[in-house]
Amino acid sequence: VERPRHQGMAKNTSMRWRLPLVCLLWEVAMIVLFGVFVRFGAEADAHWEEEKREMNLTSDIENDFYFRYPSFQDVHVMIFVGFGFLMTFLKRYGFGAVGFNFLLAAFGIQWALLMQGWFHSFKDGKIFIGVENLINADFCVGSVCIAFGAILGKTSPIQLLVMTLFQVTLFSVNEYILLNLLHVKDAGGSMTIHTFGAYFGLTVTRVLYRPNLEQSKDKQGSVYHSDLFAMIGTLYLWMYWPSFNSAISDHGDAQHRSAINTYCSLAACVLTTMAFSSMLQKKGKLDMVHIQNATLAGGVAVGTSAEMMLTPYGSLIVGSISGIVSTVGYVYFTPFLESRLHIQDTCGIHNLHAMPGLIGGIVGAITAAAATEDVYGKEGFIKAFDFTGVYQTRTPSIQGGFQAAGIVVSLLMAFAGGAIVGGILKLPIWGDAAAENCFEDDVYWEVPEDEESDVYHMHNPEKAASP
Amino acid sequence: VERPRHQGMAKNTSMRWRLPLVCLLWEVAMIVLFGVFVRFGAEADAHWEEEKREMNLTSDIENDFYFRYPSFQDVHVMIFVGFGFLMTFLKRYGFGAVGFNFLLAAFGIQWALLMQGWFHSFKDGKIFIGVENLINADFCVGSVCIAFGAILGKTSPIQLLVMTLFQVTLFSVNEYILLNLLHVKDAGGSMTIHTFGAYFGLTVTRVLYRPNLEQSKDKQGSVYHSDLFAMIGTLYLWMYWPSFNSAISDHGDAQHRSAINTYCSLAACVLTTMAFSSMLQKKGKLDMVHIQNATLAGGVAVGTSAEMMLTPYGSLIVGSISGIVSTVGYVYFTPFLESRLHIQDTCGIHNLHAMPGLIGGIVGAITAAAATEDVYGKEGFIKAFDFTGVYQTRTPSIQGGFQAAGIVVSLLMAFAGGAIVGGILKLPIWGDAAAENCFEDDVYWEVPEDEESDVYHMHNPEKAASP
Amino acid sequence: VERPRHQGMAKNTSMRWRLPLVCLLWEVAMIVLFGVFVRFGAEADAHWEEEKREMNLTSDIENDFYFRYPSFQDVHVMIFVGFGFLMTFLKRYGFGAVGFNFLLAAFGIQWALLMQGWFHSFKDGKIFIGVENLINADFCVGSVCIAFGAILGKTSPIQLLVMTLFQVTLFSVNEYILLNLLHVKDAGGSMTIHTFGAYFGLTVTRVLYRPNLEQSKDKQGSVYHSDLFAMIGTLYLWMYWPSFNSAISDHGDAQHRSAINTYCSLAACVLTTMAFSSMLQKKGKLDMVHIQNATLAGGVAVGTSAEMMLTPYGSLIVGSISGIVSTVGYVYFTPFLESRLHIQDTCGIHNLHAMPGLIGGIVGAITAAAATEDVYGKEGFIKAFDFTGVYQTRTPSIQGGFQAAGIVVSLLMAFAGGAIVGGILKLPIWGDAAAENCFEDDVYWEVPEDEESDVYHMHNPEKAASP
Repeated sequence: VERPRHQGMAKNTSMRWRLPLVCLLWEVAMIVLFGVFVRFGAEADAHWEEEKREMNLTSDIENDFYFRYPSFQDVHVMIFVGFGFLMTFLKRYGFGAVGFNFLLAAFGIQWALLMQGWFHSFKDGKIFIGVENLINADFCVGSVCIAFGAILGKTSPIQLLVMTLFQVTLFSVNEYILLNLLHVKDAGGSMTIHTFGAYFGLTVTRVLYRPNLEQSKDKQGSVYHSDLFAMIGTLYLWMYWPSFNSAISDHGDAQHRSAINTYCSLAACVLTTMAFSSMLQKKGKLDMVHIQNATLAGGVAVGTSAEMMLTPYGSLIVGSISGIVSTVGYVYFTPFLESRLHIQDTCGIHNLHAMPGLIGGIVGAITAAAATEDVYGKEGFIKAFDFTGVYQTRTPSIQGGFQAAGIVVSLLMAFAGGAIVGGILKLPIWGDAAAENCFEDDVYWEVPEDEESDVYHMHNPEKAASP
Repeated sequence: VERPRHQGMAKNTSMRWRLPLVCLLWEVAMIVLFGVFVRFGAEADAHWEEEKREMNLTSDIENDFYFRYPSFQDVHVMIFVGFGFLMTFLKRYGFGAVGFNFLLAAFGIQWALLMQGWFHSFKDGKIFIGVENLINADFCVGSVCIAFGAILGKTSPIQLLVMTLFQVTLFSVNEYILLNLLHVKDAGGSMTIHTFGAYFGLTVTRVLYRPNLEQSKDKQGSVYHSDLFAMIGTLYLWMYWPSFNSAISDHGDAQHRSAINTYCSLAACVLTTMAFSSMLQKKGKLDMVHIQNATLAGGVAVGTSAEMMLTPYGSLIVGSISGIVSTVGYVYFTPFLESRLHIQDTCGIHNLHAMPGLIGGIVGAITAAAATEDVYGKEGFIKAFDFTGVYQTRTPSIQGGFQAAGIVVSLLMAFAGGAIVGGILKLPIWGDAAAENCFEDDVYWEVPEDEESDVYHMHNPEKAASP
Repeated sequence: VERPRHQGMAKNTSMRWRLPLVCLLWEVAMIVLFGVFVRFGAEADAHWEEEKREMNLTSDIENDFYFRYPSFQDVHVMIFVGFGFLMTFLKRYGFGAVGFNFLLAAFGIQWALLMQGWFHSFKDGKIFIGVENLINADFCVGSVCIAFGAILGKTSPIQLLVMTLFQVTLFSVNEYILLNLLHVKDAGGSMTIHTFGAYFGLTVTRVLYRPNLEQSKDKQGSVYHSDLFAMIGTLYLWMYWPSFNSAISDHGDAQHRSAINTYCSLAACVLTTMAFSSMLQKKGKLDMVHIQNATLAGGVAVGTSAEMMLTPYGSLIVGSISGIVSTVGYVYFTPFLESRLHIQDTCGIHNLHAMPGLIGGIVGAITAAAATEDVYGKEGFIKAFDFTGVYQTRTPSIQGGFQAAGIVVSLLMAFAGGAIVGGILKLPIWGDAAAENCFEDDVYWEVPEDEESDVYHMHNPEKAASP
């Protein structure tokens, strides 16, 4: 209840010049690079009238905007409100959770538009962007939000911006290897977003291991209302996950199917999470940590396969398993990771993103390998896996092998990248707080006096009398 | 402020084996039944390319996904955030409100996909699902969320799962009778969702009457921030209700019209609610209970008629009346129901869903009976009421009569079903809490120590000094 | 912490008869006027089947509903949750913030449908409405929500309803002058919504200047959780702003482009806001007031130009500048306005809406003046600025001049209108609270006893022991 005694801090956490410098420098860089490279794509350019005629489109409704914009907005909510509020569960780190998530995501989407643009939307020296690029930028930043979950409360905003810069870069490289070189399908990002993001974050937090973190243990819990704020994040992630997994799938049946599979998987996941949360606690009481997190594992675990013919009952199975794995992870793996492997994972991203992400990659590989022309139809089969051009001779089992390779590449990129970036973040110049001041907004934020002051007043009756 | 003394509890509320058993058993049943029955509908199946050709569709945008997915997501938010947070108004039952709503809805949508599928999407031994089925499953679960409002804080999660199983079943039967046998229109569910759900819940809570409930009276109120959490639920229900009432209407003008009528009705409802809330309180102060609930009655009351030519001013009238009825209900009827009829209605669903639902059914019957070819146009008239096939000779007044019959059937189903299900829930095996522990999360949830502990510290200064 | 002593109030704040009277009177007026004037537009009318044939439309998807409804819902969320929760930052005015915003917006949209309908959708003595009218009504009310921000906590609900009546009227006149007489482009409302709304509100609050407001200074701050509630409002405004600026743009590329420009501007704005928030505080700590508000300035500042070929890097520049201007405004201008000009601006709308609105108007004028057929394409150029009919000879530079004139007209309307309406609101009949009771929900709302009572109990140990 008492304020941390900052006068006693060994570290200089003042952001006064460092944070503005980094923010402004990077924003200027963004402006210059956008000026040189970024232009409107054909469907967002005022020349669209002529374009429409050339493409023989009879209606404005054929603009990709109308296929994807509603999904984009749902994804946008997931990144900013979903991840932001999910992390407000800590009693005294709500500002940092939602505020730093806001900061890193707002920077990350700009840098992602460039990085992903160079890899995927580059033509004649320019990057041409449309609504699909906005979705992909949000996706890329999603992987940074995931990694943020592991180091939540232990890093300065500058460290987060530095991490975002590197992680977005590595994400884009990894995504390019998977989607373009390996020709892997991963529309909902089980591998590119969740597996990569989570193992990257876990590696970073391992490198940044703080042996004295138990000094701030009293602040690493929740209070009643902070748990309710976190449920806002949970529910928005849960509800909009069908949009997440279907947002960049092919028009038509693929988007439709992705939404259905994800809806089913998530519904099943809630039941197994509740079951195991109650079963693994001595008195059978439910734990909000599980409800806030493990209920979402079903969305992660169908990220790769949702647009495939996974089928509704297949989705129920995947969702059920991932809810169990994730809840068991919170009860047994997280303490193990911390005590034995020195991995301090604030939000338990290992349980919500890493393991379910791996499940998602594996389920995707199996579903791809099991695909037949009978199930997909002749045209549907080619369209679903994009078996055209140089890939027209690929068989489902070979595709399954490449999907599996995608998991391995994502893991390697995450470990190597996380180790390097963790090393950079360990430099003593970024202004992170001492162990006893972790999980405390007061270090980087102006915090209003409230309950604390009440308690203070109690011991000073004359003050309480005249507020 | 003191914790309930659980050691003194007469009842065994431990969920440790019972809740996992029920959750896992039912999820396994869902997987088996989905495996046997549920398949992707044509628009979500990879054979869609061929389907498109057969149906002469020139564009993927004709896929029903693009007509209904944005509305589906809005409905989804209403069920999980809307109902979930609306019920967080209780000071110590926020976890139960949002968490149990999450649990029952996640189970209910799976069971509803099956039940409604057998009645409406069954062909050649399989249920074929698409986005419209997802919306209908959410709708069905909406009626369970409504019934949950009556028994909020007084039941165990197992009781809720048992109730969901039965209520979804009965809902689907009632819906089949109304929509298929009586050929009644009810796109926004005034009868099928609200009237049925509310009277079902009120009957259940009557059967479960707790004579000693005043023992937990101190917990049956709100605190300042719990009222703000509840407003999140209110506003999402209010804002997205136009999507709710238009989500499964016919493509084109019907969806468009439903949204406009609902928008108008809800706007009017806010003003009359505020007026009567202030008028009925001695000092003229507004009551958050009314603002959180009665402002929504306008959405309920145009549920049947919104897709008809109710007209914007007709909607204003219906919305105005329902706001008044609902607010008056909170002030006068709820205490009467409790003291005289022994109906303990935690959220006042009688005022928000039951009476406005009846109004909605009646307004729908009148609007249907008053329909003319002049107002609808010749084709529009047939399309609006689906007067084709065996129904091509139906006149508006006969349709109005059938609409009225739909209200009666819904009421009978609700009373009979609620009595039976209430009886089942009364069995002493489900682990519900004793009267003095109602409205208290601590019974079924791990609750963090927070303000309480502060207050506790006050009386133990030595503890407060070293937190 | 102590309750205000109401017994000492000089003013009669009871709403018991006044508020119901105003609400019911105005709702009756709405019903009569809607009955006389408002009808469904062609796309929402049951005659649509015939209409479709006449317009040679082959699919229901061509109904404007499918182009605009998802954006409408996003705008709807911005008005009710966005503005409502943004203003909950005050520690004891959360009910008033979200509740009065709800009240005035629900009334305002009805009156706006009429006012804007007479100006823009009037034919043969009737107003024909569709989804675009709903969006415009929400937009119009947005300007009232902005003005509410200046007087938040200092006015009675009746004053707000009176202000809404007049402001909606003046908004519609101003909008008609700009869009129809000056033929100005302003799809995102930098001028019509933000400049007009903000300067109107600032003028009103100037007229209502309260010299003794420091008597309630202790309640004019936030507490920890009220700041988190406010962040819900901030994030929904931020995330959905691309929908706001694109909602009524032309179908196709214009909507697409508006969303991209707004997305970019807002992302940049977050970084410069964070930079200056940290830089301008002695210890370099971030201030939630800036994060909650100045991060949104980027959306305001591209309101006029987002649908033009502003380009992504142009958007980054505008967003960066507006974040800086807005944050500097909070630190330096707001105290200056209060101490020197007697403008008491509770939410700092001068920084979030007034200055960025002016920037938006100017950027729009420049972007229009700089337009060339080369950049827009021949057809795109005509379509973007609607240079048809009597306007076919307008050049870009003339258009730029008219855009600039639009700013001036909006300012004059705001100052004149605000002065008159402020004068009306100064009449001593509306039941506003005394200075010492400002920013206090207890004046107009039933407020549950909570933390206060705890603190009270502390000094009465015998009470605390038996709650």
